[in-house]
Amino acid sequence: MDYSEQRLQKCLQSVSALDEAAMRLARERQAKLAKPPGSLGKLEDISIQLAGITGRVKNKVDHKRVIVLAADNGVVAEGVSSSPQSVTLSQTINLTRGITGASSIAKHFGNDLVVVDVGVNAEVRCPAVIDRKIAMGTKNLYREPAMTRDQAVQGILTGIDLAADARTDGVEIVGVGEMGIGNTTTSSAVLSCLTGLPAEATTGRGGGVTDSSFLKKKQVIDGAIALHKPDRNDPVDVLSKVGGFDLCAMTGVFIGCAMEHIPVVIDGFISIVAALCAVRLCPAVRGYLIASHASFEIGYVIAEKELALDAYLLLGMRLGEGSGCPIAFEVVSAACAVMNTMATFDEAEINDDYLEEIRKQDSFTVK
Amino acid sequence: MDYSEQRLQKCLQSVSALDEAAMRLARERQAKLAKPPGSLGKLEDISIQLAGITGRVKNKVDHKRVIVLAADNGVVAEGVSSSPQSVTLSQTINLTRGITGASSIAKHFGNDLVVVDVGVNAEVRCPAVIDRKIAMGTKNLYREPAMTRDQAVQGILTGIDLAADARTDGVEIVGVGEMGIGNTTTSSAVLSCLTGLPAEATTGRGGGVTDSSFLKKKQVIDGAIALHKPDRNDPVDVLSKVGGFDLCAMTGVFIGCAMEHIPVVIDGFISIVAALCAVRLCPAVRGYLIASHASFEIGYVIAEKELALDAYLLLGMRLGEGSGCPIAFEVVSAACAVMNTMATFDEAEINDDYLEEIRKQDSFTVK
Repeated sequence: MDYSEQRLQKCLQSVSALDEAAMRLARERQAKLAKPPGSLGKLEDISIQLAGITGRVKNKVDHKRVIVLAADNGVVAEGVSSSPQSVTLSQTINLTRGITGASSIAKHFGNDLVVVDVGVNAEVRCPAVIDRKIAMGTKNLYREPAMTRDQAVQGILTGIDLAADARTDGVEIVGVGEMGIGNTTTSSAVLSCLTGLPAEATTGRGGGVTDSSFLKKKQVIDGAIALHKPDRNDPVDVLSKVGGFDLCAMTGVFIGCAMEHIPVVIDGFISIVAALCAVRLCPAVRGYLIASHASFEIGYVIAEKELALDAYLLLGMRLGEGSGCPIAFEVVSAACAVMNTMATFDEAEINDDYLEEIRKQDSFTVK
Repeated sequence: MDYSEQRLQKCLQSVSALDEAAMRLARERQAKLAKPPGSLGKLEDISIQLAGITGRVKNKVDHKRVIVLAADNGVVAEGVSSSPQSVTLSQTINLTRGITGASSIAKHFGNDLVVVDVGVNAEVRCPAVIDRKIAMGTKNLYREPAMTRDQAVQGILTGIDLAADARTDGVEIVGVGEMGIGNTTTSSAVLSCLTGLPAEATTGRGGGVTDSSFLKKKQVIDGAIALHKPDRNDPVDVLSKVGGFDLCAMTGVFIGCAMEHIPVVIDGFISIVAALCAVRLCPAVRGYLIASHASFEIGYVIAEKELALDAYLLLGMRLGEGSGCPIAFEVVSAACAVMNTMATFDEAEINDDYLEEIRKQDSFTVK
């Protein structure tokens, strides 16, 4: 095992289970808050999960970051995508300007948006894009393995480093997005490998391919798997043979956030496939994952079930880029507000002293 | 017809249909934005609806207000609720302090929270609660009509006035919540009247009643409807006989927001029953409604179908108070960000001049 793979193994071993003691305290506090038990549903669940992640009952997620991994996929040569490859470059740059779907939303909510080139098939030459390029796109996985095993490991380690940067910068929640024409094809291929399901079950239309391209897309996926026979018990093998640099780095961000005890939000289909790779590499990562929106891409539900996660935003979105993460961050922040601010049953009781005190104070409700 | 009812009729007649021309322009702009068509799903739908409401393609919802209508219900004498009536008073006051579920979330997001006493069965004596008390709670609807027809009309007009205040204050989006022990009973009763369904179909456990209280709750609802025989084609008759002051005023807020061209967000079960009353009184109100979360209370889905609305937050919440509205506001604000900030396909094209310009500017993504 070479040095990089040794480092990855050490990283995987360093992910700890959620802090059960903190979660118990969080559950106890939720039970004391002045509301019918369980009546805040998912907000309660999230607040308890955050306690497990950070070890603290009260948390905040004021510093939010979406990390977008951009890369090209050689498989577009097979005509599996509705957009030309050049769109990866242009949208990677546009992300940094806040004028794409995800970045307009991230900017609106004051999120950091960190755009990272891990394999765009062009010189990006935009200083706002972080250069971690592994190669000028992957190979065409229908003909040969998408990348070497070394490159896959390098991609995952790149993601782990990005999570470490987030910790250094004081980031309190991370979302994982992507930009890369052809990456619904790679994601469906990886999902098929990890689940043993045929392309027919895991593959949707992505950005919106024609009927004939859709058929081709599924043939390409089944064909590539038959050709390379990835070992489904070895996610690095799967990623290297039929994945992409974006998927590798995203997998690394999920692992890295778990290492750093940072809650990490899954975006849509590609993001959840990377999350599944991370959990297959290291089951303890599961506890650090927060779902967001239910992508319309059909493979999403398969990965969601594999991970035993429940998306809670039903927005009919299928854009990618991390576009669901900023909205999910707001749901998580609402969960924090409840845990941090709501009164317990004892505190909620009204008596004359309390009324007297209220009369002396301004209310936040005054317009 | 007396003066108040005449005024209500004039209000209902003044609600205009959505601005079709603005919606067409909004649809055209969505089609030009650099993304696969429809890939932002609900965010696209909301942005188009907002155009119809305001007449402008680009909108913002920076000034957000949750209006909480508080009132008591005489029917609690039948033992239909798990909480004592005094909780209405204490939580009405606690709402103004930002320490209840909804108010902790509203405060976190910087929303106005306007708490209005329309019928709490106590002297509230809290200056932060707006006094629009109609009576000290309703009568016990199992024995006699909950209120007079005049009181029901007064309640609706109170809500309409609160929406007019919101317009005066420059509010750009309103959410409608409530506080009132016993109000899942009144809401199920109103829903049963408006749909012709028995209590069995429309009634859930609300705050969490025991098995025997749950049975009693359904008997009370069916019994009250059999006794008073409300005219299902006359929502004012229904509200007066088996409703509550909170439901009446909430109905008024929905109508008033439509009159004022303010988008208005439905919270949970009680809120959606009031929205249904508003639409039955004036079908044009429907266009101004924005759903939020799918309440766990079983009647929610019935009202949702009647209104042909789709909740997009699957949070398993059933607290009320308007607790889902602040989160929905953030989804709506994301929809605005997309419409206002995303580049069109033309604008998204990258050329050398563009790259040069980028190099000269700071990026918002820089940490």
